[in-house]
Amino acid sequence: MLIVKKFGGTSVADKERIFNVARRCIEDYKKGNDVVVVLSAMGKFTDVLVSQAKDINPNPPKREMDMLYTIGEQQSVALMAMAMDSLGVPAVSLNAFQVKMYTTSAYGNARLTGIDTERIKNELESRKIVLITGFQGVDKMDNYTTLGRGGSDTTAVALAAALHADECEIYTDVDGVFTADPRHVPGARKLDEITYDEMLDLASLGAGVLHNRSVEMAKRYNVQLVVRSSLNFSEGTVVKEAVKMEGTLISGVASDKNTARIAVIGLEDQPGVAFKLFDHLARHNINVDIILQSVGRGGTKDISFTVAKDDLAEAVATIERHRETSLRCEKVDTEENVAKVSIVGAGMMSNPGVAAKMFEALYDAGINIKMISTSEIRVTVLIDAQHTEKAVNAVHNKFF
Amino acid sequence: MLIVKKFGGTSVADKERIFNVARRCIEDYKKGNDVVVVLSAMGKFTDVLVSQAKDINPNPPKREMDMLYTIGEQQSVALMAMAMDSLGVPAVSLNAFQVKMYTTSAYGNARLTGIDTERIKNELESRKIVLITGFQGVDKMDNYTTLGRGGSDTTAVALAAALHADECEIYTDVDGVFTADPRHVPGARKLDEITYDEMLDLASLGAGVLHNRSVEMAKRYNVQLVVRSSLNFSEGTVVKEAVKMEGTLISGVASDKNTARIAVIGLEDQPGVAFKLFDHLARHNINVDIILQSVGRGGTKDISFTVAKDDLAEAVATIERHRETSLRCEKVDTEENVAKVSIVGAGMMSNPGVAAKMFEALYDAGINIKMISTSEIRVTVLIDAQHTEKAVNAVHNKFF
Repeated sequence: MLIVKKFGGTSVADKERIFNVARRCIEDYKKGNDVVVVLSAMGKFTDVLVSQAKDINPNPPKREMDMLYTIGEQQSVALMAMAMDSLGVPAVSLNAFQVKMYTTSAYGNARLTGIDTERIKNELESRKIVLITGFQGVDKMDNYTTLGRGGSDTTAVALAAALHADECEIYTDVDGVFTADPRHVPGARKLDEITYDEMLDLASLGAGVLHNRSVEMAKRYNVQLVVRSSLNFSEGTVVKEAVKMEGTLISGVASDKNTARIAVIGLEDQPGVAFKLFDHLARHNINVDIILQSVGRGGTKDISFTVAKDDLAEAVATIERHRETSLRCEKVDTEENVAKVSIVGAGMMSNPGVAAKMFEALYDAGINIKMISTSEIRVTVLIDAQHTEKAVNAVHNKFF
Repeated sequence: MLIVKKFGGTSVADKERIFNVARRCIEDYKKGNDVVVVLSAMGKFTDVLVSQAKDINPNPPKREMDMLYTIGEQQSVALMAMAMDSLGVPAVSLNAFQVKMYTTSAYGNARLTGIDTERIKNELESRKIVLITGFQGVDKMDNYTTLGRGGSDTTAVALAAALHADECEIYTDVDGVFTADPRHVPGARKLDEITYDEMLDLASLGAGVLHNRSVEMAKRYNVQLVVRSSLNFSEGTVVKEAVKMEGTLISGVASDKNTARIAVIGLEDQPGVAFKLFDHLARHNINVDIILQSVGRGGTKDISFTVAKDDLAEAVATIERHRETSLRCEKVDTEENVAKVSIVGAGMMSNPGVAAKMFEALYDAGINIKMISTSEIRVTVLIDAQHTEKAVNAVHNKFF
């Protein structure tokens, strides 16, 4: 069996944890499996690098930031290879250049374009555990790139797909995917299985276990994922195409405080206005979430949408840059103290009234809804950030 | 003009020093020069990496050690690029893989085999300062390697040769090459010029300003070196093929405590014994220095030689491994508390009696000589390490 295992930064934060991961991997290796391990940078090392950089240049060139970031995972894989060697198991560390993990040139937010599996296969054939730097890639010009948030998960899934791995295990510090955040919702319970689509919605809505890009890729290439804890041996949650129905309408309740609302007020009511607005943002790699368009005063229209908090400043700057030319509007409002609360579940497709049930729970809890967005298997509302935990609990109690 | 500038770890140890180096480089850049900068890892970062590694594995695989080491210089060049950017000058950082700085696969002690200058030239043409990681390379299989001690100097000289640079400046924390170590010899004075051969002997004998591999390469490709301080603007010492005679017999007095003596006693007196002994050591990349062979008792012979202290254990182990087969001998003795003291100077070629003058100085100071080695432009003696400073002063006073 070929197994790809991914461990995050906290799992390799110090010597003890590095050896813990080493032993877990060696266990699978000694059963005769081929083992590929994807690692993130150690603990807070990335934060150290960021503060070093910002101290020198508050606005460092993105190419150089990626050049700096990529040393973090290289440190992790080299130290892990040493740990495995000391346990008597041959291992080899490879970074993005050595694997030939090709990406676009969008520094800080690059997309994988191809993986050369030859070197990895050769190393596996010589019975080595192969340790690969997560999060990073190289572009066509040999520049280092990084994949952005959750990038190491994406690396693991992409490797599992390219190598036709039998399993891709994503190790975290929780036992799997829960119906709600167990730190805030006492009744939250672990799911045994969840579909890609449900996981996708949970991921994109701040459930925080897996990044949506990695789930998208797993779905596209049909890579079976297992989300499990690096701290114990419980079974975890399997993410796959179809799961057996468990009689529940929804799989989970997620919240996300890393969100901000932008309202563009008084846009000219002409064709192409929305296209221009979101095209400008896309060109700056700004992901837009819930979008709401309404009729404004005097033949104008208003468009509101949410972005990640990190992108707020750049999004507003981008709009302001085009206000006098292609994006004539009255004003741009922003709101930062907002949060998204979502319910997700394949079950809701065949069960009308799920959204209404959620709204009822919020109404009963006295929470005002600012925006609503729905998909086939998801309902998301935007509320005041201060009510987040209360809202999640109210909704969770309503459904579970 | 194309200038290659190399700065060591102390020159980039913190933010202030990074900016100091950035400004020095920008000064040359703004005069219209093409500037290539070679950097070492920051201050004590390499030591941090070594202790991280040793904590995990006291005997880490050399390939993985190099994988770990190479992050140090990558950090330096990335941060330097950010510093230059903040000063409004475009810079690009390149590591060994991006330059395509090819080496042999001798991890920890690799030799450069070729440099691809295309990327560097392209970046220079677009008027960027090009920042290159010293000390590191990649082998044919894309593994990272390091060049061993003084590796960054070698990187700088090799780049200067490959790029046909007009000048190669090696920045250190002293003003140039001195007739003796100014910290220990009050009368030591800075040399304006020195030949490659003299510098070679000084470097290989522990004068510590330049590593011999870099000087050898400079001599072979006729790269004019300037050794100067990064802390002030004094002229430094020019290293080149021929210098004007200054009427002094010798250029400098050097000492080296990083040495140990090995005596192989009672070897069979047969042809090929010395060859076998030193061939075994060479295969383990152990550099041997002063060699002395003498007739032993009962038709045997003794061979003594010196190695760097770091290599002592491995050298002895290598000999022991072959004692029962190809290297029959009575015993292997070692001595660690020894030091080499040398005088170097092209002037001594045409002046007999220079060696005698040195021995006289040592005799007057009451210092016993354990071994002697001479070349055309150098006399080296091995003495007790405790007398090193005394010996250097005595010899320096005799000649200057």
